[in-house]
Parts: sequence; structure tokens; C-alpha cells
Amino acid sequence: MKKLKRSARLVEMTQYLLVRPHSLIPLTTFAERYNSAKSSISEDLAIIKEVFHDEGLGELNTLAGAAGGVKFIPKTPKAVSLPFIENICRELAVPERILPGEYMYMSDVLGHPSVINEIGKIFASAFADLDIDVIMTVETKGIPLAYATAAFLNLPVVIVRRDNRVTEGSAVSINYVSGSNKRIQTMSLARRALKEESKVLIIDDFMRAGGTIQGMKDLLQEFRATVKGVGVFVESGEVEEHLVEDYVSLARLANVDSRNKSVTVLPGNYFD
Amino acid sequence: MKKLKRSARLVEMTQYLLVRPHSLIPLTTFAERYNSAKSSISEDLAIIKEVFHDEGLGELNTLAGAAGGVKFIPKTPKAVSLPFIENICRELAVPERILPGEYMYMSDVLGHPSVINEIGKIFASAFADLDIDVIMTVETKGIPLAYATAAFLNLPVVIVRRDNRVTEGSAVSINYVSGSNKRIQTMSLARRALKEESKVLIIDDFMRAGGTIQGMKDLLQEFRATVKGVGVFVESGEVEEHLVEDYVSLARLANVDSRNKSVTVLPGNYFD
Repeated sequence: MKKLKRSARLVEMTQYLLVRPHSLIPLTTFAERYNSAKSSISEDLAIIKEVFHDEGLGELNTLAGAAGGVKFIPKTPKAVSLPFIENICRELAVPERILPGEYMYMSDVLGHPSVINEIGKIFASAFADLDIDVIMTVETKGIPLAYATAAFLNLPVVIVRRDNRVTEGSAVSINYVSGSNKRIQTMSLARRALKEESKVLIIDDFMRAGGTIQGMKDLLQEFRATVKGVGVFVESGEVEEHLVEDYVSLARLANVDSRNKSVTVLPGNYFD
Repeated sequence: MKKLKRSARLVEMTQYLLVRPHSLIPLTTFAERYNSAKSSISEDLAIIKEVFHDEGLGELNTLAGAAGGVKFIPKTPKAVSLPFIENICRELAVPERILPGEYMYMSDVLGHPSVINEIGKIFASAFADLDIDVIMTVETKGIPLAYATAAFLNLPVVIVRRDNRVTEGSAVSINYVSGSNKRIQTMSLARRALKEESKVLIIDDFMRAGGTIQGMKDLLQEFRATVKGVGVFVESGEVEEHLVEDYVSLARLANVDSRNKSVTVLPGNYFD
């Protein structure tokens, strides 16, 4: 590769790091890529590290030694993510969004990739230090959130289907009781979609009693997998008892009154 | 904001532009943000423009005048995207992936956010010059592709459901005949999910005869919307007659032999 000036190198390295989060990049990779001395590369990285830190984009961790290199860990400080979530709470707290069964219409908000990416970055910050192999979600509305989180954590995604029409070879199906309406439902996952004994992060858009999440946990037992964390975008605080105790929520519904069409939306337990 | 040195400014502007594709950013935004002269900002942008071009990231278009500014248009040259797609074709062309009904197991490949983002960037390049309001897909496996494309085009996404259990208020449902197995199926979309007369780009993961895509087109007529483009990741070339004629495909299945478990996977019509 042609020798780049420092200015061009900084632009190139910035974009290179941003699309490779949680990946160890040896300094030699950059040195060869730009035909530059490692000492120059180190100076460049110090500049990038400072800007990433000041902008709240995340950490640039340098590992010394022969197996060393640099790793970009996306992390949004809570001081940055709280105002973003408060804005979303205000947008959600309108009567027209209340649906029958105390659900909430959020598809418009979750239809914006910039919102989805920001939420994904917050989940990736919350779970950055866990040892995870794969992110799991259940169709449909959790899928974009799971992929956004996975992109910032550099992990693959598996999608559980809400039926047993899986056309992907042999599958494991379980029945679960949706905690809110007590209906028996089915979810399934193709055998080959998940390695045995995987370490899993569950991501979903909405949790009431937690029946769906508990269903995913039961399904994961069939794969002898370990649940390392659970992240839900919005939880309903209206539930007397959650089936799932240990989870991270970014927003919380309170005082849902379907009859008088009123609702309060507050930041979730991540900000407690 | 504190005055940044050129080196730090370049890092900051690069990340700022990358997460704001297809958005016009006035030079004054940068000038105020970094407390710098517009002439300095213009010099910075020239450096970034050259690197983005050389790296195949896309164009940095500068619009002069009072309403002027700069706009990042992600565009992957075909010379860069073809080897990427050829790699995927090789990965897909293994007998174990052939499913009953001449479908193909692709969930593992489509489970990687980096693959999804690359495909999204290719679709965004293919449709960069169209006037589009919104991207539409149908659950389940097209969703990550639709969001990835939408992120690079700075557009919202609407998801069509494959049933009529839509809990999002009044909805429009249509029946359609899946072209491959002639079964009658239902798809639906909440009224409030899509403005009347929207200009729509349809994105999906797989197309055989095109029944599902034709179904989405029929559904869109109920919203008096216009279909501006159709992008499918993989098409099956085994079909005598496609219901949909005008589409962009990135890969194509040929010679699917379920009995002898063999298949050929070639780059799609985008590369013709």
C-alpha cells in the first residue's frame, strides 16, 4: 500500500477501527497497511484514543507485547445515554401508543436505524465485559436490536422462531406460557443454529411478566447453553411478579391505564 | 467546544460523517463544533474525501452556496463487492445447505453482523440515487438486511407481518399465493406504519418465484405507495417464470438438485 500522510492515515485508521469493535488488531497490521513505523502508528492511536474517549465513543485499549495490539471497545457513558433514553421516554409516553393488553406501539421509533444503533450501543456498553459467544432473540421486533448490539460486540446472532414451521432441518421446540395472557405458545430453534454449551446474551424489545424470556431460557437448556445476560429495551413495571429476575432494562412503563389512555415512561433499571 | 488540532478534528469528523450517511451537514456545523475557520474545515474534508474514495467507502459530496454543506454517500465499488459476494457464494454452495423445497440454509451466514452490514452497503450502493422514503421487508430473515440497508441510506424501516395477529391497531391484510408451493398465505401491515403515497424500497433475503414480493407490492397498493426498487440477497434461478421482473439480486442459485444434494451459487444480476 502507498505510504499515507499522518492526516490520511488518521482518517483511514478511524474508520478501520470503528467497523472492527472488540477485535484485537496487531500494530503490525497498521504498520504494513500504511507502510509506516510502529512508533508513528502508536502516536496516531494515542490521538484516536483521546478523541474516542472525549466523544464518548468508547475505549481504545492497547495491549503491549508480542501478541499485543489495539482493541476498540464501544462504550457510551451513562451521562450520554440517559438523555437519549429520556427523549425516547417522552416520545413513547403518549396515549395513542397504548394498545390492548397494555402493550405499546413502538414500531415507528424502532423503525429508525439511528435509534436502533444507539440502543445497540447502550446494550453493548452494558454487556461489554461479559464473556459471550452469541446473541439470541425471538422474532420479530427484537431482531434489529439484537443485530445492532451484536455489531458493537462483534458477535453472531441466532433468531428463535415463534412457531415450529422451521424449515432448517431438525429443530428443538418448546411450549411456554406467555406470562401476561396465559396462552400456551411455541418457540423453536434449528439444531444447527447454536453450538452446544454456548454462552448467550438474550436481547428483546419488550418484557412484561417475562414468559417469552423464560421460554428462551428453557429452550437454551436443551442446547446446554448458559445465559450470561438479558437485555430488554422496555419493561412493563405493571407486573406483580417477574418470571425473570436478572435483566437490564433501558426504559420502564408505569401507570398504564388503557381505559383513560395514560402512561408514564421512565428510564429502566440500567440507570438505577 | 474546545478548539481541536487538525489531527483530532480529522478523527472526529470521520466518525461524525460515517454515522450520518445521506445527511447534508452544513460546513458551519463543523466550524462551530470545532471552533475552526471554514477554510480549515474545507481542507479537512478534502483529505477525508480522498481517503473515503481510495478505500471504496463512498463519496463525500460538497454542495456549495448558502444552503451548502457536505454529504457522505456510502458506495462500494463493484470491484470491491464482487469478491465479497463470490466468497459468500463459495460458502453457500455446500450440499448440507440444501433444504426441502429447494430452499437454502443461510441463517449462519446471515447471523454475522459484519456480513449483514456489507450486504446492506451493497444494496445502499445499488439504490443510492433513487428517491426513497422508506424500506419495507417481511419477517423474519429479511429484517437484518433491511435495517443494514436503511442505516446506510438514512431511511426508516417498516416490517410486514406474516399473519394477521397484528396488535398495532387497525391493519391492512392481504392474501397471497406463494409462487413456489401454491399455498395461500396472509401478510399484514398496521395502518399507521406507513404514510399514504410513500416511495418504497423492498428488501428481502430470498426470492424464488417472487410470490412474497408480489404480495408486498399488492399490500403497498392499499397504501397507494410506489415501489421504487426491489433488492433480494439470493434468488433461485430455477424458476421458469418470475412473478416479479424488476429486481436486483446479489447471488443466484442454479442447478439445485435436492436428491443428489448439489447446487451452484453464482453472483446475482447486480453484477451482470
